[in-house]
Amino acid sequence: MTNALSLNTVTVKETWGLAQCIEGCARHGIPGISPWRDVLQAMGLQAAAKQIRDAGLTVTGLCRGGMFPAPDAAGRAAAIEDNRRAIAEAHALGAQCLVMVCGGLPPGSKDLPGARAMVRDGLAAILPEARDAGVTIALEPLHPMTCADRSVLSTLGQALDLCDALGAGTGVAVDVYHVWWDPDVAHQMARAGTRIAGFHACDWLVPTTDLVFDRGMPGDGVIDIPALRAMAEGAGYRGFTEIELLSRRWWAEDPDTVLQIMKDRHARFC
Amino acid sequence: MTNALSLNTVTVKETWGLAQCIEGCARHGIPGISPWRDVLQAMGLQAAAKQIRDAGLTVTGLCRGGMFPAPDAAGRAAAIEDNRRAIAEAHALGAQCLVMVCGGLPPGSKDLPGARAMVRDGLAAILPEARDAGVTIALEPLHPMTCADRSVLSTLGQALDLCDALGAGTGVAVDVYHVWWDPDVAHQMARAGTRIAGFHACDWLVPTTDLVFDRGMPGDGVIDIPALRAMAEGAGYRGFTEIELLSRRWWAEDPDTVLQIMKDRHARFC
Repeated sequence: MTNALSLNTVTVKETWGLAQCIEGCARHGIPGISPWRDVLQAMGLQAAAKQIRDAGLTVTGLCRGGMFPAPDAAGRAAAIEDNRRAIAEAHALGAQCLVMVCGGLPPGSKDLPGARAMVRDGLAAILPEARDAGVTIALEPLHPMTCADRSVLSTLGQALDLCDALGAGTGVAVDVYHVWWDPDVAHQMARAGTRIAGFHACDWLVPTTDLVFDRGMPGDGVIDIPALRAMAEGAGYRGFTEIELLSRRWWAEDPDTVLQIMKDRHARFC
Repeated sequence: MTNALSLNTVTVKETWGLAQCIEGCARHGIPGISPWRDVLQAMGLQAAAKQIRDAGLTVTGLCRGGMFPAPDAAGRAAAIEDNRRAIAEAHALGAQCLVMVCGGLPPGSKDLPGARAMVRDGLAAILPEARDAGVTIALEPLHPMTCADRSVLSTLGQALDLCDALGAGTGVAVDVYHVWWDPDVAHQMARAGTRIAGFHACDWLVPTTDLVFDRGMPGDGVIDIPALRAMAEGAGYRGFTEIELLSRRWWAEDPDTVLQIMKDRHARFC
């Protein structure tokens, strides 16, 4: 099945733990799941892996590794260690990829090229383990409005340049929310080819009232999601569409309602 | 004098009209001014031109033309007419450029390529008058977070592609707030060369609490403004630095205090 639906657990994070998310996916006939590490660790890795397997769900990704920049060497080493644990977790879950939110500027720094070098060095450090574990490192470019505090990796082109530099075992996670505005997106999607390791959807609301927690449900905003999906499929991607909402409005809803609406919107707008 | 200071009038828009801005610049020894059209029209074009001339101020730009996309042909034609008036105003003021905020998606539309075509067609329509008037059309790429509702022109590279397509009489207005995150900015600044028609500064706050009205005073955020200024100067730009804050926090301050702090921050951080 192409373009199947996957639930990113952050979408219902205020109310459901991972066990409830797994049960919810089974109940609503959603075949994929992408856990965040906080709910994974709260449930326990082995229990989670077993319940996901028993439910027959595909793990479309593990969210998230990254956050490499830090003010000092000890901080950067700690980030690398944490990413190594994330690789082990992704391997244990059989996740299709480990999604990388690379990190912003270290506190107090204005050195953007320096932060980008820390990201590249961090990725290079963990890549041998990822290759050994068979875990694809999916670089996720984040919207430029998150550059200061979440991701100095801002465009698909920049992510693919990094993939080129790092080599085998790397790919990209394409979230329509982060790339829809990019005048170069069609070209970069074609360039990505088989390196598209994940495809995430939500919508850009007008107006958007918060830089992080005001993502829209597909269909409620202005992103031409089918056009972006067609670009990904044109590049050869046949995988899931993962719906990932960070949204105070949707966090306040009953999670079963959210999953029902998600399914409907996926069918109509993705 | 290179890197002189210019006041963009929006910085004190809640308290000062244009006459007060002109007097404020004279009082604080700020040699440049960049009026918005609303305060210009409120004062009257001829009176404003005379008072600015008498005060010996350089008009570094007129803000703003653009806003070309509209749902129907009548709306697009009205936008073009309004831009013709803006060209006449910029000419009467002797402004160094007319700054273009190109416009977002028409209401209800998800057609980003279509909106970009409306921008290109609108610019092509007004360019003959701009050339006749000797008014440089300065395309200002706006931060991608404004793509839906303010500017489908999002990067310096995209703006320069449009300059290439449109030809003589076009240039770019570079605002550090809009371009600082761009991994391609150094390359595109060098490419811009003599087409840099304006250089605007403010700062990116961490956290940023509003997508439009939370810009920071230079020095209060994370943008390496001197690095970006050096890129512009490396490309041959020797003009003013215009400080343009859209900020609820600074709008609440006494304007004389704002101008004093602006001068100090310009000297230390720009």
